[in-house]
Amino acid sequence: MKELRQISVVGLGLLGGSVCLSIQRRFPTIKVVGYTHRPVTRRKARKLAVAAEIADEIKPSVSGADLVILASPIYTFEEIFSDIAEALPKGCIVSDVGSVKALPHRWAGRILPKTVRYVGSHPIAGSEHRGVEFARDDLFEKAPCILTATKTTNQQALRTLKKFWSTIGCSVKVMTPAKHDIIFANVSHLPHAAAAALINSNTDSALKFAGRGFIDTSRIASGPANIWADVMLANADNITKAIDRMTGELAKLEKAIKNNNRRQIEAFLKKASSKRSSLIRNKMKRKELML
Amino acid sequence: MKELRQISVVGLGLLGGSVCLSIQRRFPTIKVVGYTHRPVTRRKARKLAVAAEIADEIKPSVSGADLVILASPIYTFEEIFSDIAEALPKGCIVSDVGSVKALPHRWAGRILPKTVRYVGSHPIAGSEHRGVEFARDDLFEKAPCILTATKTTNQQALRTLKKFWSTIGCSVKVMTPAKHDIIFANVSHLPHAAAAALINSNTDSALKFAGRGFIDTSRIASGPANIWADVMLANADNITKAIDRMTGELAKLEKAIKNNNRRQIEAFLKKASSKRSSLIRNKMKRKELML
Repeated sequence: MKELRQISVVGLGLLGGSVCLSIQRRFPTIKVVGYTHRPVTRRKARKLAVAAEIADEIKPSVSGADLVILASPIYTFEEIFSDIAEALPKGCIVSDVGSVKALPHRWAGRILPKTVRYVGSHPIAGSEHRGVEFARDDLFEKAPCILTATKTTNQQALRTLKKFWSTIGCSVKVMTPAKHDIIFANVSHLPHAAAAALINSNTDSALKFAGRGFIDTSRIASGPANIWADVMLANADNITKAIDRMTGELAKLEKAIKNNNRRQIEAFLKKASSKRSSLIRNKMKRKELML
Repeated sequence: MKELRQISVVGLGLLGGSVCLSIQRRFPTIKVVGYTHRPVTRRKARKLAVAAEIADEIKPSVSGADLVILASPIYTFEEIFSDIAEALPKGCIVSDVGSVKALPHRWAGRILPKTVRYVGSHPIAGSEHRGVEFARDDLFEKAPCILTATKTTNQQALRTLKKFWSTIGCSVKVMTPAKHDIIFANVSHLPHAAAAALINSNTDSALKFAGRGFIDTSRIASGPANIWADVMLANADNITKAIDRMTGELAKLEKAIKNNNRRQIEAFLKKASSKRSSLIRNKMKRKELML
């Protein structure tokens, strides 16, 4: 792994803060510099000592970095790339932790200087909580992390980043940003849309009778609306296709119910339960899930 | 409460077995008689001593009962009502634990003799597990239980049943079967349909990347397909309307995404997250949910 002496993290929420703490734990010799545009968060981050240095301005925060990681909302990346472009050292690696990847790749290609190397990262970790005060140095322990690369991605930068995320605990996989965005539209963004639609199709008086099943099925809809609105806009094409597929599946089930076709209804439900069983089995085999 | 000397439970799965054990715990002087058509389950039930007596035939199992509770799949109720009609003592109360209520009321009105009193019950309790071996005497502790009654329901029978379910731990609420079925189509049957449709709209290769969010959102789709097919058929009208509502909500979100309307997307997601917050708050206030 190319030697990293300084890593700068832009955005100090739960994820950014946890990246900082994880680096401090696993790479004690690397200098961590944090930046966020919010003065109040900078104060909190200093108090919690999430980084060796919390910069008050963005350019100085990255000017000595070997690796810069953006951990702010996706739609801030474009502006941040512009803001830091000049200050980035030659050969610096730039990455981010956004959950949509084609768009950041496009922005990076257009805005960042050719002397720096962009690779996308998507560590699949988080919590119900937001904010640097919930940051943990073990948030990425056993978390999958997808790195996204295209034909033009620098291979050495990719290797360095692979090593980086593995060392802080992730199991790393590489794919194209296009493939990433299709997969996550289906397994992550669609469930969010479905959970929200499920709640919104219920009246408050019916919800008084919601049980454990409803509560679990709708859990992720409690996530931050602004972040998820970003995700849905940033991955609009794939997520609208995913919604179409789900609507199609619901229509199939509805038709079977209307036709009083017990065999079809049961086949539909059985297919779902057996797909889920094999999903759980696979997760447990790979130790990504403990029951 | 009218004195109950014998309660007969027909169907000895998780629910039926747990009803038996709960009676033994809370009403030690009441004789519990269990019946199931499966010899192997009868043997298990005897070994586990879920009831004072496990009958080999259905008629003798109910002939001395003051209260008969059906805990078998919904679509067996019609035949069971016919099978037991003649054997039921005068004044006997008949109930069931089915999660759809209009249909059993209809069957009871048509099949049961006028000398017995039918009241529907829907205790909202269960577990991922099936079978008498998972039966517990505390399964109904703090569980909501809906009793369903119509204009013709015997009020004394309703009072007795209220007392019965409260004593074994439930918080009881009475409503019409029609209202019950609309509410549960929305808060229980629809989430099941949605969870199954969510899984079925995903490929197995995408599912390899499913995280905690997907796993929770889809959890209930692991339930028994045959039981849920019954529920969907038995509550067909209400559930197809509920699916239509959810499809409509998904279409609303999709349109906002296609129109690149950030404000609408965020409003949609915010509405869902705030509805869910107040649902959770209410549940905690009523101590139906501990976090």
